[in-house]
Amino acid sequence: MQASTLITLTSDFGLNDPFAGVMKGVILGINPQANIIDLSHGIASHDIREAAYVIGMNYDFFPDRSLHVVIVDPGVGSRRRHILVATDRYFFLGPDNGVFSYVYEKEKHAITAIDITADHYFLRRDSSTFQGRDIFAPVAAWLSLGTDFRSFGDPITDYVIQAPRVPKSLKDGLKGEIIHIDKFGNAITNISRTDINNLTRTGKDYLLKVFFRQKVVPLKGCYAEGKGRSLYAVINSSEYLELFINLSSAAETCNISIGDRVDVRLAR
Amino acid sequence: MQASTLITLTSDFGLNDPFAGVMKGVILGINPQANIIDLSHGIASHDIREAAYVIGMNYDFFPDRSLHVVIVDPGVGSRRRHILVATDRYFFLGPDNGVFSYVYEKEKHAITAIDITADHYFLRRDSSTFQGRDIFAPVAAWLSLGTDFRSFGDPITDYVIQAPRVPKSLKDGLKGEIIHIDKFGNAITNISRTDINNLTRTGKDYLLKVFFRQKVVPLKGCYAEGKGRSLYAVINSSEYLELFINLSSAAETCNISIGDRVDVRLAR
Amino acid sequence: MQASTLITLTSDFGLNDPFAGVMKGVILGINPQANIIDLSHGIASHDIREAAYVIGMNYDFFPDRSLHVVIVDPGVGSRRRHILVATDRYFFLGPDNGVFSYVYEKEKHAITAIDITADHYFLRRDSSTFQGRDIFAPVAAWLSLGTDFRSFGDPITDYVIQAPRVPKSLKDGLKGEIIHIDKFGNAITNISRTDINNLTRTGKDYLLKVFFRQKVVPLKGCYAEGKGRSLYAVINSSEYLELFINLSSAAETCNISIGDRVDVRLAR
Repeated sequence: MQASTLITLTSDFGLNDPFAGVMKGVILGINPQANIIDLSHGIASHDIREAAYVIGMNYDFFPDRSLHVVIVDPGVGSRRRHILVATDRYFFLGPDNGVFSYVYEKEKHAITAIDITADHYFLRRDSSTFQGRDIFAPVAAWLSLGTDFRSFGDPITDYVIQAPRVPKSLKDGLKGEIIHIDKFGNAITNISRTDINNLTRTGKDYLLKVFFRQKVVPLKGCYAEGKGRSLYAVINSSEYLELFINLSSAAETCNISIGDRVDVRLAR
Repeated sequence: MQASTLITLTSDFGLNDPFAGVMKGVILGINPQANIIDLSHGIASHDIREAAYVIGMNYDFFPDRSLHVVIVDPGVGSRRRHILVATDRYFFLGPDNGVFSYVYEKEKHAITAIDITADHYFLRRDSSTFQGRDIFAPVAAWLSLGTDFRSFGDPITDYVIQAPRVPKSLKDGLKGEIIHIDKFGNAITNISRTDINNLTRTGKDYLLKVFFRQKVVPLKGCYAEGKGRSLYAVINSSEYLELFINLSSAAETCNISIGDRVDVRLAR
Repeated sequence: MQASTLITLTSDFGLNDPFAGVMKGVILGINPQANIIDLSHGIASHDIREAAYVIGMNYDFFPDRSLHVVIVDPGVGSRRRHILVATDRYFFLGPDNGVFSYVYEKEKHAITAIDITADHYFLRRDSSTFQGRDIFAPVAAWLSLGTDFRSFGDPITDYVIQAPRVPKSLKDGLKGEIIHIDKFGNAITNISRTDINNLTRTGKDYLLKVFFRQKVVPLKGCYAEGKGRSLYAVINSSEYLELFINLSSAAETCNISIGDRVDVRLAR
């Protein structure tokens, strides 16, 4: 499989600084045909778990053979590896620090990973503080030009996995937590539709209930079904359980933070 | 008329979350030639009026046959319609909730509107919380590929209009209000150059004066004509009256908010 | 030399308003093949020095014949000139207010500058408040179509230079200052690697020390070498001295602001 010319960027760079822009300059200098799409530059600084979540929930909405570049890299310039990952349908490029953990899990590890060492592909102006520009951008560009992904280094199997925050089993359900709060103040949990299906399959006569701070949160089919300023739950577009208030910010109104506990339980 | 490959996106998604990015992935999966331009993702959450204003002031600076996708959609997943609008020169796509109200007015309703129901164009992974990704993105892509816009559903004429906040007539002028504050703190009113021209035509010997909080605000030709930290008015690039302070934020300095009253009056 | 179709945009527009988006609409209306890249729209409002720094540090990471458009324009609509600059490898377009000062210095003034007066290239809907849309966007588009850059006006040599904040000489070193704080809270000084090399060349037996608020700040090779929450210095990817705390914001932790003094001194 050869990479296409579609490259996505995900980072904690924000958009005020020229970091993402200058990476695009480097890429287009090597492959003028590259089509570079920003997935998000709004990852919290150094937050590997959030980056893993964002790319994990979204990579397979892109066309086959896309290259996803993820740069949340607290170890930039240190001896952590640069990794290139290939699955059946996609390529991934970034620091080997766990940013692709959801990908490994979803793809059931049916992947090939390369430790990038072929530094003749790197920018000559190699800095130790901005390897997005000096290493990842040129490698992305060369890959999108059709360079064989094996030529960037040797295969490895001990790539770093950052265990995703999965819900814990309870006697009668699952103990989850808030892992992301979006722009609208919706609070997303780590409890997936699959988790819930597995739960209800084992207790068919029971009713599923969502608990937040000792109270039941009614489950709705869409945001507009929520009434007034009350808290509700919905299975969101990434197939995860999410708390919301219709037309308002649940996170602000209820003072919800990352890490807050949310349970689902089976009850009669 | 067939749509071109140019698609613009306007939304209240912000840029921290991957919402806009993943829509681009879906579009490019269907039409790899699409050229997707962000007009603004900075609309206030759920603010249909602001979205209507932003697309209304800017759509006709784009090339003919562009498709403008506007997703400010408080009713996502409910029974509100998805609408596709064609004018002489442009296509528009979004929820049928009034986001195209300025377009209807500017185009004097010389439009064709379609209630989108042909769900074989939708993404199979159809969610009730992110129809930007699951419905609007694929419809935009198919339209930009040349699909006839009539094939997306049946024509309707009862599309939703959100009455724009137009100025009210006073004995000697117009009572307007602030409808938008931009990044520089400039405060834009709902009083247009046309409104002012109509006013002065009826009172040629009179002088036009702008009033804000009982005080006259001098009208200038450009920002740099404003002196010191005083408040001035200018007809802005969207042809609307705007309050400003040169090199400073009028909104912050004078504590101006959306909805604040601004009058123009004829005086001797 | 003819311009390529690659156009970069740098401005103080922010991304909430549709300013950058509508400029792209105007450009693509004239040259549908233009490839428009945002370098940064996060320049502080009206901050010519910051714009000069951002374009100065990044322009030469883009492919040859790129056109860099910089719109930080406190004098918009006044009689300040619109300038088009050509170097050996690049084009630059913006208000003649000093935004290209670093470019002039780096290119040792081996440039040609044009005072843009050929207003038949401008948009007909010419406003006095948004010349990014009405003048710079169409001129950029026509240039990217291959229009000879001499046809936009007459050459000038008295273009405006905004003296960059260069470090001052001390008896035993240099007195610099903080000129930019990035998204991660890293505080960038105006002391370059070249400045430091010149200093150490003249005092080979001496050791270079970085001083901030009377204390020595240890110089490291990359961020990850910094321990705990202590302040360190590094030569950054733009080859300037930068203060940082590993995995944390130096600016917040140490309350660092633009203009704060940083010295480098030679000591035994």
